[in-house]
Parts: sequence; C-alpha cells; structure tokens
Amino acid sequence: MWGIIATWRMALEGVEKAGAQLAAGGNAGDAIECAVREVEDFPYYKSVGFGGLPNEDMQVELDASFMNGDTLEFGAVGAAKNIANPVSVARALAHGDANNLLVGAGAEKFADEQGFERKNMLTDRAKIFYAKRVAEEGGRLPNAARELGEPEAEQETARGAMPAKEAEKPARAGIDQEGTNPCGHDTVGMVCLDASGTITAATSTSGLFMKHAGRVGDSSIPGAGFYADSEAGGSASTGLGEDVMKGCVGYEIVRLMGEGLSPQQACEKAIAHFTEVLKRRRGHAGDISFVAMDSQGRWGAASNIEGFSFVVMTENEPACVYLAHPQPDGTCTHEVASPEWLEEYMASRLAPVTL
Amino acid sequence: MWGIIATWRMALEGVEKAGAQLAAGGNAGDAIECAVREVEDFPYYKSVGFGGLPNEDMQVELDASFMNGDTLEFGAVGAAKNIANPVSVARALAHGDANNLLVGAGAEKFADEQGFERKNMLTDRAKIFYAKRVAEEGGRLPNAARELGEPEAEQETARGAMPAKEAEKPARAGIDQEGTNPCGHDTVGMVCLDASGTITAATSTSGLFMKHAGRVGDSSIPGAGFYADSEAGGSASTGLGEDVMKGCVGYEIVRLMGEGLSPQQACEKAIAHFTEVLKRRRGHAGDISFVAMDSQGRWGAASNIEGFSFVVMTENEPACVYLAHPQPDGTCTHEVASPEWLEEYMASRLAPVTL
Repeated sequence: MWGIIATWRMALEGVEKAGAQLAAGGNAGDAIECAVREVEDFPYYKSVGFGGLPNEDMQVELDASFMNGDTLEFGAVGAAKNIANPVSVARALAHGDANNLLVGAGAEKFADEQGFERKNMLTDRAKIFYAKRVAEEGGRLPNAARELGEPEAEQETARGAMPAKEAEKPARAGIDQEGTNPCGHDTVGMVCLDASGTITAATSTSGLFMKHAGRVGDSSIPGAGFYADSEAGGSASTGLGEDVMKGCVGYEIVRLMGEGLSPQQACEKAIAHFTEVLKRRRGHAGDISFVAMDSQGRWGAASNIEGFSFVVMTENEPACVYLAHPQPDGTCTHEVASPEWLEEYMASRLAPVTL
Repeated sequence: MWGIIATWRMALEGVEKAGAQLAAGGNAGDAIECAVREVEDFPYYKSVGFGGLPNEDMQVELDASFMNGDTLEFGAVGAAKNIANPVSVARALAHGDANNLLVGAGAEKFADEQGFERKNMLTDRAKIFYAKRVAEEGGRLPNAARELGEPEAEQETARGAMPAKEAEKPARAGIDQEGTNPCGHDTVGMVCLDASGTITAATSTSGLFMKHAGRVGDSSIPGAGFYADSEAGGSASTGLGEDVMKGCVGYEIVRLMGEGLSPQQACEKAIAHFTEVLKRRRGHAGDISFVAMDSQGRWGAASNIEGFSFVVMTENEPACVYLAHPQPDGTCTHEVASPEWLEEYMASRLAPVTL
C-alpha cells in the first residue's frame, strides 16, 4: 500500500507527481520532497516558497521540514532567506545526530555549503500584497516596494490613496486568519507512505504574512506542525503555528494512531480537544487543521475552521481534492471539491493584483 | 505549596533566590526568571549565558524559553547573539498570540526594540576552550582566538603545538557528551510552582559546543526541552536536544502527570521508553535528563546517563543538590550530593584554563 495526503488544494500537482513515483516503487522520502518542491516552485501560491508573502521588513523568511518515520530523524530550517527549495535543505539536515534544526543565517550558510540553489524569493506580486497591507495600515513603504512591476501600483502607493480596509484586519496583531479566505496564507504539509512501509512528513511555508523578523512557526518544529513514526503514522498541519506548538498537536495525533485510533479519529480528537483547551485557558483558539495517514495507508483530515481543503492519492484512489467541514460534535465531514470550486480556486490565485 | 526544581548544580544559587521570592508570595514567572538569570550571569558556567561556549564560528548563540502553564503561552529565542539575559527576552515574547518564537537576527531585533541589555557573551575563558578544541582538531584558529587574555594560550596556539586528545572526542560529530563530565556542557532547565498554583518552565543554554551556526536545540521548543500545564505539571530537560525533540519528551512527561503518574514515575517512564525507542530505531540514544514538578509540588528527576545533578527547593525542604543514578529497570535513585562533590564541582569550574 502507498499513499500521500497534503494540506490545501495547492498540493494537487505535487501529489500527482509523487503518486506516480510511489506507484513505480519510489520511496517516501523522494516522493514527498518532489511534491513539496512543486508547491514551492509555483509563484502564485503566496504562502509557500517562491512568491510567498514577506515579513514586516519585506523579507521572505521560510520554514520547512522533513521527517523520516523509520528512524525518527528530522531536518528543518526556520526563518531562512533566499533558498529556492527549503524542503530539500531540510531533508539534507535530517542526516546526522545533531544540528538538525538550523535557522536564519546559519541555515543559509548550510545551504551554501551543500550547494543548494539560492533564489530571491520575493516576487513583484508579493511586493504588491505587502504594499497594500502597508497602505491599509497607513504606514510608509520601504523604497523597494515603491518600484513594483505594475506601474499603476506604484502610482497608487505613491499617492497613498488606498483606503484602509478595516473589516479585513485580523482580530489580533500579526495573525492573518485567511484559512477561510480563498487567498489562503497557508502551509503545505504532507504525509507519505511508500510500499515498503516508510512514512515521511514534510512541510514548507513562508509563515505568517507581516510576521516579526525571525519568527519561526510550527512548520519547523517536530511534534508541532509535523511528525512521522512508521510504526504508527504521520501528521502535518496548517494554521496558527503558535497555537499548534502550545499543544504538540502533531505528536499527539501520531500518538493516538499508535494507540489504535484511525487517522480520522486521531485528527478529530486531538484538534477538538486542544481547541477546547485553548478556548478555556485563553478565551480563543487559532486555526488548526491537520492531515494524517497511518501505516496501513488509511487517511484522515480535520480542522477547527470552515474552508480547509486537502488532497489525497493512494494506491486505491486517484488524486482528489476534498473540503473539510467541522461539525459541532468535533467530527469533520469531507466533501469532494466541485469543478466550480476548483476553477474558482485557481482563478483567484492567478487573478491580477493591483494596489 | 510552592517549589522549584532545576537541572544541574549550577542552578543552586538561582534556586535559593527564587525560593526566597516564592516563600514571600512571589509568582512563578518572576521567580523562575530570576533563577535562570542568576545562572546566565555567572561567567564560569560554560554552557549557559555569559561565558557559554561558542559555535563553530566562535560565536555564542543562545537558546532560551519561558512557558506559563496557566495559559500555555510560551516565548523563546533561538540562536540569538549578544543578549545579556535570553530568558528575559523569551519571557517578553510569551505575550501575544503570534511571533512567540524568534530566532537569530530577528530575535536580536526584538530584544533591541524592547530595550533589553546587549552584551558580548564571549569570554576569554570560552575563547580558550574554543582554541583548545580547534587545536585538537588540527584546524586554524580565527584571528580573534589568537588574542586571548592569557599569553601562554596564544603562544601555544600560534605554534600549533597542542596534541589532539583523541580519547576525548565525542563519538559522533557535533555531539559533546559531557553529561558524565564534571565540565558539563549543559542546559539549565527549571520548573516552578507558586502558592497560587501557577506552574512555569524556563530554559537557557548556549547549546552544543562547536555546533553549526544557526543550530537551535530543544531548549527553544515547547514540548521538547520544556513544557508547563498548571493543571498537570511542568518539565525541563538537558541533554542532546535533537534526540529530545524526536520524542517530544517534555510534553510526554507532562501528559503522563496529567494521567495521574507522579513526577518521578513520569520522568522515568518517558525517558526509559524513548531511550529504548531511539536505540531500537537508530542504534544509539543521546543523553536525556529531565526534572519535573506537578501541581501539588511533588517533584521528580530522571536520566539515561550517570552524573546528572539537580537542585530542588520547596515549601517543605531547603535547597538541596541531588545526583541521579539510573537503574537497569528504568527507575532512577537520588543521592544527596556530598560536601566533597559540591566542593569539587565548584573548584573544577573555577580552575584556570590554559591551552
């Protein structure tokens, strides 16, 4: 049995490539890396890799990870700049018994030492999103954002003519709750099982839009945004990393699978329980969504928000995009995404953006 | 009931100060921050704060964390340079719902924004340890290490006359297994309970000696090197961070306390189990030691190595240094440190070092 499951519709093309590899006997490490790279390379996904939205200083800082469930080895980068494929650097970091999580300039140094491709990850499109946000907040743009590829944007910005969109501002500073938004600011997280029984997990993201410089989220943290144990299963998340980290939700889901819960039960139980804990202790809970797969190739996906999409492909089912619908009792139903939904998804991503 | 428990003898003076605060009704946040700062400030502990040993580039990069078990809020810095008291920056980062883990230059930027004291954390003494290691490995010293405070060191280094000490080299690159060594390269990790029932956890370390630039260990990662839940208990670790991270051992210990295990049972069970997992899956397990305290002020400490010391002080017992002795069945006995052991500990730290 082989299979792969991933957060968000954006993973579809990568999942299809990985599925072809797995069907041909490829291993779960190569397949998941290939799938995540596909998302990293696509410039119109503004939350992962090239085209990802920048931090407060208009710098694209990337988090990514890789974990092998046979050996529990993991590699991860956090807040790393100008690396074309952070997931590949993360995978390279999984070798060895120490120095597996590298951040910032040190991660970039490692990437250089190992010969990984450097790339300016800030696109003109991402600069426009940044400029819009700064204008909404009434701030001054860094010089670099004034020289955008689209002249009308420069013009609008220079005049400072954009009204602030109050209604779109997140409830709490620094949190861009676009999980329910077709322009999602979202992590790609994947779990993969190959025919030999190896389970891997991997993630990649540019993190929260307008985050503080140096912010690292759950996508770099084993047991938070990802976990893999080939004897039990694997998990990967998207959502508010700081809340996922508070509950070690990725580890908890795999632990529950190890206790015998199905991937669906494990995702539902862990997310519903920790969402309740967060609300009781803190008064509110951030977005938390997970995908999971177990050592038999069974899969699950759950969320505490409406609007979470995910992609599955296994030996028994072709690649398919689903939407998750959380229920009041903590369970989550799945709906196959309609052709209209899929068309709208891609159209919204490719739509021109102007200030 | 109040109490505080901490890894290693080096925490003694800080624990005594924190205990006085707790006895006077102080809260667990202030008390634990005070205790960790005491360790950070002492220049002769070469694994925490000022005087900490540098990374491969002779840069002291610091990891630290703070967690409040009432709200599950945490703050942490990773691979941050030239910050006098990383634990205080970590505590400041715990406020707010996002941007709680900052690394590298971004963490330093936050510290500057918030007015925290900057300090060159590299001491001449640490430079000598670095120079010795480089000489052992037959490498060339960076210029800065040639200008040491002690002339004989410079002389020896310039001549390249130091023989490599093969027997002292760690078994695996980058891992400095000094847990069994009186010159331990060790994290200070603490758990604190105040009279109002709040549990906090905090850590601080300069991490693995000669680590890769940008390496972040378990001391910055909630659920790995520390965790706190006032309804269950708190945990804090020292050891090989990369192995602690693989098992989310800090979270697991608190989870087991939540299931009703005593802190001692929880530490023993989690460490013995995960050590066995690591040996089975990877052929070897790094050093893992934990201290824990529960919501009733009961405490525990366990380790998979000989030589782990820890400090406890509660409402019912004065500050005391213990040594942990792991048993073949996975349990761990505790021995009160003798006056001779305590004298030797401090003498070895204060001993002159030369090349």
